[in-house]
Amino acid sequence: MYTGMVIGTVVATRKDEKLIGCKLLFTQPLNINKNPMGDPIITVDTVGAGIGEYVIYTKGTAARYAARKLDAPIDAAIIGIIDNVDIYLDVFEKK
Amino acid sequence: MYTGMVIGTVVATRKDEKLIGCKLLFTQPLNINKNPMGDPIITVDTVGAGIGEYVIYTKGTAARYAARKLDAPIDAAIIGIIDNVDIYLDVFEKK
Amino acid sequence: MYTGMVIGTVVATRKDEKLIGCKLLFTQPLNINKNPMGDPIITVDTVGAGIGEYVIYTKGTAARYAARKLDAPIDAAIIGIIDNVDIYLDVFEKK
Amino acid sequence: MYTGMVIGTVVATRKDEKLIGCKLLFTQPLNINKNPMGDPIITVDTVGAGIGEYVIYTKGTAARYAARKLDAPIDAAIIGIIDNVDIYLDVFEKK
Amino acid sequence: MYTGMVIGTVVATRKDEKLIGCKLLFTQPLNINKNPMGDPIITVDTVGAGIGEYVIYTKGTAARYAARKLDAPIDAAIIGIIDNVDIYLDVFEKK
Repeated sequence: MYTGMVIGTVVATRKDEKLIGCKLLFTQPLNINKNPMGDPIITVDTVGAGIGEYVIYTKGTAARYAARKLDAPIDAAIIGIIDNVDIYLDVFEKK
Repeated sequence: MYTGMVIGTVVATRKDEKLIGCKLLFTQPLNINKNPMGDPIITVDTVGAGIGEYVIYTKGTAARYAARKLDAPIDAAIIGIIDNVDIYLDVFEKK
Repeated sequence: MYTGMVIGTVVATRKDEKLIGCKLLFTQPLNINKNPMGDPIITVDTVGAGIGEYVIYTKGTAARYAARKLDAPIDAAIIGIIDNVDIYLDVFEKK
Repeated sequence: MYTGMVIGTVVATRKDEKLIGCKLLFTQPLNINKNPMGDPIITVDTVGAGIGEYVIYTKGTAARYAARKLDAPIDAAIIGIIDNVDIYLDVFEKK
Repeated sequence: MYTGMVIGTVVATRKDEKLIGCKLLFTQPLNINKNPMGDPIITVDTVGAGIGEYVIYTKGTAARYAARKLDAPIDAAIIGIIDNVDIYLDVFEKK
């Protein structure tokens, strides 16, 4: 799974009917310093995430499980809102 | 899912028979500023998209669900036509 | 799906028995100008493609559907021979 | 599968309920010289790994098998703790 | 599928029990000139490959089919030993 920041919304009136009711959000992938890394993707929100929230997202078949829509054309979904991250970069110094 | 622009068509007479009836379109991946990013891929159209349209596409197994052809050799499909995108890049300033 | 050029053959006597009978071809990924892009991969031919042909290939589970061998260790397959491609790059100028 | 170093933890109170009970760890991908390569991902621990441990992790559907949670939104999991690695780079000289 | 060179071994005593009996080998991805390309991955050997052998490997679900272990956390496997490769780069000159 990956960390990201919710940065926007997408509206598509004409779409696969299995996406009806899915909230589509742009999520910007982040590195561990919370800086943007690579390009945003469109994710389905499954946890009530809002703009600016720091989230966990998943890709592939896992995203359809998250959305509880196994036959929908979904390949990315937000699955958690991050409260806290602890990083121990000194593990590389001890090597 | 990803955003892209439909930029072309592909004709293949000799092909997997499960692709018969599928409209194959070149889709150029876009970044959030709607600039091209990386190389175009071949997508199956499932929503009636035309050249120059701004679309959502999906990859992998999700694409076969989109095409309603679970046993076809499809790994990318257009699943929506984008009406509007709202991006809030100021979320990074508030950090 | 992706566009590529068939550029070679691979012979492996000792291999997974589910690959017996599969023609293994090196396919060079191409960009829309038909120039090489990235490194060649090994694909299973499912349409009678020959050296130098301009093809469509697919990756992942879709490749096993193409080969009609759902339990074989295949992750890439050629699924069509391209007759014609039309690209409309002026869609970006009209933006 | 890939080699990595466990470098941190993630806490998310609001999350997919199928992740309850999963220990979420940041794993830094490593190259064969045990140097960081690319960006950390979030993995589910399935072997009792701790901070600073040198691990094997897997991605995609394989990660759900590792977690014994086939319907959870998991796409990466730690599946082993590495005791020893032997690399023979001289195979390239003999070529 | 991809070509690689077997360059090493991995020992992990503490691991997913479904990996017991699997030989884990580091495989270095190669380009068509047999030069290293990118970083090695851990593959399960399914054909009796040894250090220094030139092999075909597969990724994702295909790797679990290769290992005949559909519920194991495997995402890469060696599926053949390459006897010979013929590359015809002049196809690009004829274009």
